Amino acid sequence: MTHLNDCRALDTTDPLRSLRAHFHIPPSTVYLDGNSLGLMPIAATARAAQVVQQEWGESLIRSWNAAGWFDLPQRLGARIAALIGAAPEEVVAADTTSVNLFKVLSAAIRIAQHADPKRRVIVSERSNFPTDLYIAQGLCQTHGCRLELVEAAGIVPSLGPEVAVLMLTHVNYRTGAMHDMAGLTAAAHASGALVVWDLAHSAGAVPVDLRGADADFAVGCGYKYLNGGPGAPAFLWVHQRHSGRTDLPFMQPLSGWWGHAAPFAFDSTYHPAPGIAQFLCGTQPIVSMSLLECGLDVFTAAQALGGMAAIRRKSLALTDLFIALVQERCAGHGLALVTPLAHAQRGSQVSWTLERAEIGAAYAVMQALIARGVIGDFRAGDGLAQPDILRFGFTPLYMGFEDVWHAAEQLRDVLASGAWRAPQFRNKNAVT
Amino acid sequence: MTHLNDCRALDTTDPLRSLRAHFHIPPSTVYLDGNSLGLMPIAATARAAQVVQQEWGESLIRSWNAAGWFDLPQRLGARIAALIGAAPEEVVAADTTSVNLFKVLSAAIRIAQHADPKRRVIVSERSNFPTDLYIAQGLCQTHGCRLELVEAAGIVPSLGPEVAVLMLTHVNYRTGAMHDMAGLTAAAHASGALVVWDLAHSAGAVPVDLRGADADFAVGCGYKYLNGGPGAPAFLWVHQRHSGRTDLPFMQPLSGWWGHAAPFAFDSTYHPAPGIAQFLCGTQPIVSMSLLECGLDVFTAAQALGGMAAIRRKSLALTDLFIALVQERCAGHGLALVTPLAHAQRGSQVSWTLERAEIGAAYAVMQALIARGVIGDFRAGDGLAQPDILRFGFTPLYMGFEDVWHAAEQLRDVLASGAWRAPQFRNKNAVT
Repeated sequence: MTHLNDCRALDTTDPLRSLRAHFHIPPSTVYLDGNSLGLMPIAATARAAQVVQQEWGESLIRSWNAAGWFDLPQRLGARIAALIGAAPEEVVAADTTSVNLFKVLSAAIRIAQHADPKRRVIVSERSNFPTDLYIAQGLCQTHGCRLELVEAAGIVPSLGPEVAVLMLTHVNYRTGAMHDMAGLTAAAHASGALVVWDLAHSAGAVPVDLRGADADFAVGCGYKYLNGGPGAPAFLWVHQRHSGRTDLPFMQPLSGWWGHAAPFAFDSTYHPAPGIAQFLCGTQPIVSMSLLECGLDVFTAAQALGGMAAIRRKSLALTDLFIALVQERCAGHGLALVTPLAHAQRGSQVSWTLERAEIGAAYAVMQALIARGVIGDFRAGDGLAQPDILRFGFTPLYMGFEDVWHAAEQLRDVLASGAWRAPQFRNKNAVT
Repeated sequence: MTHLNDCRALDTTDPLRSLRAHFHIPPSTVYLDGNSLGLMPIAATARAAQVVQQEWGESLIRSWNAAGWFDLPQRLGARIAALIGAAPEEVVAADTTSVNLFKVLSAAIRIAQHADPKRRVIVSERSNFPTDLYIAQGLCQTHGCRLELVEAAGIVPSLGPEVAVLMLTHVNYRTGAMHDMAGLTAAAHASGALVVWDLAHSAGAVPVDLRGADADFAVGCGYKYLNGGPGAPAFLWVHQRHSGRTDLPFMQPLSGWWGHAAPFAFDSTYHPAPGIAQFLCGTQPIVSMSLLECGLDVFTAAQALGGMAAIRRKSLALTDLFIALVQERCAGHGLALVTPLAHAQRGSQVSWTLERAEIGAAYAVMQALIARGVIGDFRAGDGLAQPDILRFGFTPLYMGFEDVWHAAEQLRDVLASGAWRAPQFRNKNAVT
């Protein structure tokens, strides 16, 4: 059996423990929803005031150069690159994950079909995050393609000669299961397909090596494990073998002026910028983007403490501990682990279903937990193959091992006491 | 001759004078660049702190509902609608002007070609803002269309049976010339084409009546005359006769989850939301978007003082005064008015060229003005038909008539003294 003192001992020897002080943790809160919206870095308060009052209010348009506004997509991109195994000049921060996916998926289809016009299929996983599937469905309309959805085990068998692009999310948003990026990329390339990775639940949470995997394209999110603030700009990565091509103008169709080779020449004809900059489009939301830098600053501080390798070790220790505690202390209440036990297949979250429970029980259990300050979230199933899920994200930068104890303890108490049956926890109108 | 006291008298009788107190005006500054980046509303400071510290830092994911984050695009859209003659439920604030133009131009082409597949031409103005042309060029690649660029006088003659869409910017970013929205929309409709209006230099600056003109689509900018902050989210408008159609799924191809009929159902198939919401795509940058609301609050205050009609009266009075003062006081220095004198054809800016001047003179004159606290901007010509331009934007919410006097007086002094010839004003590396 694991005891509270064991958890406290883990905190005292945690090499990343000092990073917790970079974040504002609301009182009496165990925050297990950093995979939805990361905590606020304390520095964000002063940074917001600086950007709004000084850079905007006082310096106005001069800040496009003097405060580096115009280069923010590249400057933040280079810092994100260090977390995902990319070259610094291959990443930009901009727009939303959905819009960025549209850009890179368009480019991937264009490049694949340029090499072989018969390739008209996008393969993805049925349980991929819906917006990824929606964006692919939209592109299929204009590009005459077809989206083929398979289960995880069906990915490699699906890679036939008609497949243009394999589009996958590295860590599944519901289950926390992590794909073998290098293996699947190699399999796709062997079949002649290109690969697009969505790193929404990976970047900042698990080590990613896009260059090592020889992947083609990636997108990711700024407001989850990167702690960039609500709706923070997203990012995208393109391997230089693609972004360096000059034979495919309009490689991505969102050909706005920030992607032009000379945006301030006000030329009436579009000429894409060389490299990754051609994947920019319009003027970026500078205040939101500036706050993303505060999130990235914590990763710079983490670098001296072991970087992504240390973050990964702690992530696995946290999720191992949570799984063990829940299995020890909540036995008999029907919780079934959805997230893989094997480390190589686990992201930085733990998901459970509630077996043999009445309809709506999982939702009510999560509401009861949130009322006690343990903030995870609930993802509804489809009533068929997909069950309702209790989802707990673990951000190693600010989570402690004692937090994990309290989360498991509250979960035990909510289940054992039947507290979740109270009427106030059963109203589904609120989306959390 | 006009005198300083005449200008001061105009300030004392200006019904909008009180609105100036809503903005932070940097010391010793006459700000004539609100058509590039509007001044900071003083309320933005507290609002930024509230969104960052309270809504993000304390309330975290609860703010999606409790702070109304999720509805911000619609809530701000309804307020922008009041400024542009649209129904409140027809506008959303989101993304960038370029991305929004991609959405509505895609929809316009789709709808036009659905009615008549032979319509494959987009007509626009050669001097349109470049990003509009670039986005159209990108769409032409994927939609098999052709972009035809004409001069202003050639717009109506170009409207033949092959034209799908007429895409125009209401007020020209260089010249400040304003199109007859109702007349051109009627001409396009008579020819069977749809119309997309870019309101980047109109919204908040001149009265716009999209419904009255019976237009089809519009986009606009949040950070110019709406004073939403650097890179503030843009907006788009779609007439309900288009957004209400159910026979054209993926009417716009950026089919992300925020445009889904039930985004939190996590359905694997895209079903567009009814109405304008289907023109949303991904999660929006909440901090930047929240500050846009501070800019819109000033228009609410303006409503009690006469609203857009009063704003237009003041805009014309300011630009009339600036034209008169410059013509009276700067005569003989080669300034030639580019902006139309006729009120019906003038936006809220005044542009000049410097005739018979040496190369680079206009740039240096503007730098010398900026050094004296009179902030306009410079737009380079193409060395051919397009001359270099000195551009002065007039935001009626915060500009005073005495400001106009000082701007003209500094311009006179810079020209008469030859101060612009100093070497420090001739370095073109800085983009302002």
